[in-house]
Amino acid sequence: MSALKSWVSIPPRSHFSLANIPFGIISTNSNSTPRPAVAIGDHALDLLAFSNGGGFSKLPQLASHLQVFNSSTLNKFAALGRATHRDVRQYLQSVFAADGPHPEVLEKNDELKGKALVSLTDVQTHLPLSIGDYTDFFAGRNHAFNVGTLFRGPQNALNPNYNHLPVAYHGRASSVVASGTPLHRPWGQVILDPAAEPKVPTFRPIRRLDIELELGLFISRPNELGKPVKTREAADFIFGYVLMNDWSARDVQTWEYVPLGPFNAKNFGTTISPWVVLADALEPFRTKGLDNPVELRSYLKQDQSDAALDINLEVSLKTPQGGATTLSRTSSKNLLWSWEQMIAHHTVTGCNLRTGDLLGSGTISGTESGTYGSILEQTQAGKHPVKLNSGEERMFVQDGDTIIITGAAGQVDGGLVGFGECSGQILPALDEDFWST
Amino acid sequence: MSALKSWVSIPPRSHFSLANIPFGIISTNSNSTPRPAVAIGDHALDLLAFSNGGGFSKLPQLASHLQVFNSSTLNKFAALGRATHRDVRQYLQSVFAADGPHPEVLEKNDELKGKALVSLTDVQTHLPLSIGDYTDFFAGRNHAFNVGTLFRGPQNALNPNYNHLPVAYHGRASSVVASGTPLHRPWGQVILDPAAEPKVPTFRPIRRLDIELELGLFISRPNELGKPVKTREAADFIFGYVLMNDWSARDVQTWEYVPLGPFNAKNFGTTISPWVVLADALEPFRTKGLDNPVELRSYLKQDQSDAALDINLEVSLKTPQGGATTLSRTSSKNLLWSWEQMIAHHTVTGCNLRTGDLLGSGTISGTESGTYGSILEQTQAGKHPVKLNSGEERMFVQDGDTIIITGAAGQVDGGLVGFGECSGQILPALDEDFWST
Repeated sequence: MSALKSWVSIPPRSHFSLANIPFGIISTNSNSTPRPAVAIGDHALDLLAFSNGGGFSKLPQLASHLQVFNSSTLNKFAALGRATHRDVRQYLQSVFAADGPHPEVLEKNDELKGKALVSLTDVQTHLPLSIGDYTDFFAGRNHAFNVGTLFRGPQNALNPNYNHLPVAYHGRASSVVASGTPLHRPWGQVILDPAAEPKVPTFRPIRRLDIELELGLFISRPNELGKPVKTREAADFIFGYVLMNDWSARDVQTWEYVPLGPFNAKNFGTTISPWVVLADALEPFRTKGLDNPVELRSYLKQDQSDAALDINLEVSLKTPQGGATTLSRTSSKNLLWSWEQMIAHHTVTGCNLRTGDLLGSGTISGTESGTYGSILEQTQAGKHPVKLNSGEERMFVQDGDTIIITGAAGQVDGGLVGFGECSGQILPALDEDFWST
Repeated sequence: MSALKSWVSIPPRSHFSLANIPFGIISTNSNSTPRPAVAIGDHALDLLAFSNGGGFSKLPQLASHLQVFNSSTLNKFAALGRATHRDVRQYLQSVFAADGPHPEVLEKNDELKGKALVSLTDVQTHLPLSIGDYTDFFAGRNHAFNVGTLFRGPQNALNPNYNHLPVAYHGRASSVVASGTPLHRPWGQVILDPAAEPKVPTFRPIRRLDIELELGLFISRPNELGKPVKTREAADFIFGYVLMNDWSARDVQTWEYVPLGPFNAKNFGTTISPWVVLADALEPFRTKGLDNPVELRSYLKQDQSDAALDINLEVSLKTPQGGATTLSRTSSKNLLWSWEQMIAHHTVTGCNLRTGDLLGSGTISGTESGTYGSILEQTQAGKHPVKLNSGEERMFVQDGDTIIITGAAGQVDGGLVGFGECSGQILPALDEDFWST
């Protein structure tokens, strides 16, 4: 895909090229009210200011919906539906384009530029949508296989249902946080001696704090309770995508997860990147996902040749003194299930999705060292430490460490469609005193 | 507890005695706008009309908060905190009391009575709160033991973690519906021949549609992310309680639940009763719950002598032609964990609760036939049918059946503190044609 030219200066490695136009919620030093924006190069366009200044005057079909930008979340904009997202993104591309059709709207309008175009260095980003329910899938087949192999061996790595349905569980929506929000190491029940019987848990700060590299999807329009969304209709329900770090307390998870799944192991925080890359921006990067060896039930059938997205993903760990080390490089095509299949399976019972619901892909891993989406895989469940550039080692995340996930599709020629950063630092656990006072 | 006298006529078996004063959201034929109300005998008091008519004039500490009644949910009222709920409930008790201190407010105020006091027969009830996250616990130890025995035998019925922590999973908030909302039998993947290998699922309307008798709790005030709620502080976070039917597709559950827990088996609908019985209304009915044989970790320790609630619960099944049959009678004291312990465990990692979050107790069962909270237990996993009064039999719920849960504490002398009904009918599954069009 050849890069489009913009009158806005866009560095060649910027994730926010003219081919992207991701949506987020910003505030600035001069205006602390959170409001919608798009990112373009090193700038954000404040959509409330842009709209109030007549910026959408050349997009008449949006005229009756401009109040969606007077909001602290993107939910109202998302609810307008994919056709409108497409129109607005294309319009903004035309506004930013060099030799575009409407230079008077922004390029030649110094007053509006002064009000609406702000440097990203002056911007604070917030959670982009108010999340209704958060569902986490387990569609990263390599991850499921890698972890299953660690605990049950390669013959029994995948459960019998794995290839037949997109396994998922309901996650915790309240503790989804925006990139940059630090989280405390949680306390929890852990088993210090797995061989002892009967098992008696110890209450302490958890030791096996791990990450999960995921892609997240925000739902645009709702479906009615009792009315499933078919795989072939599901694309219309996709607003866009974010990067996600589904922090995991592995020692808690091992003890608690039978029979109802992870609970405390996951509910202390999930970090997402601030800019929602619209579904349409990623259409050029559709590709084939992982092969499924079984015949699918009818409601999940889909042409698999372009059912996945090819986004280059990278995880790095930054220590307080030692700088950053890349832990993993992989691609979002390492999923067994497409997003359309995940939506269809989620709703097959009639379950209703709502605008702002968040779906996670599950951990995305390749098949070899350096491509894993969790530290658990990288260290073979805490057996072989990861060597960092600084000479330090890690079995799991330590206090003070920052995990940074980045992701982008496309070419480094001013044509990247990326997410920016999904970053989070782990702070020390609460003092023991907390519990007695 | 002796019954309080009211100038409102309250039938002796009414769940909505002067000792109760439960809160809900109503609309009426003459005013379709949902708004807060309390139930009293066969009437509802419209709190928006009551407030607008000066009804709270003798409760000056509420004066700056009256806008909470101009809302289609109880969230704003719940967020005011337990001390305010107590004040408002006691004030409304005084307004309804015979020989109360303020007869001019309502009893002798025909204009306000005409506007605010409406017959329950003219009232439609709605979901009482906007639900953030819904978490379902598994605190019904008898149920866990009964079901575990069916599948693993009595020696291995309870998992090793069961007595050490309140097992829970995140449920689906979007499909929680108000009593009276019918639900379609879902489609899903089921294994028709459990003995065949490899297992191949069939896509069809589910066959083993079951119920789960539960108590639900609504959270009043939020805790900050990273700040756990201690067991001894948790009572302040309780707004009140509802009855709950956590509908379950047992055949889907068996196939899907390893390793991440139930998903499609539960996400098609959860029915709750419309009136929230405030925490304070149930204080007189505190009692001892089930004994726990293990030493608890410090954060879960609590004086168990009055940690449970003694609410008489009843499940009945009504067939289209055959009338109703009582399936089960039990008590909410059949829980291993108190609500305070569940809140403490939920937040021990720092997970934040928000106003309007819903917690389910898990299925409440006794230890013998006629006291079970699920049909699975009653029929011994579909082996021995339940005989209905009409001569019909049931292994699971059939299309057209209505499940009615009722519950009340206290004495039938005008002193009942009850929930009314939690009712839901199962409609036929979608036609096969739905999937091909």
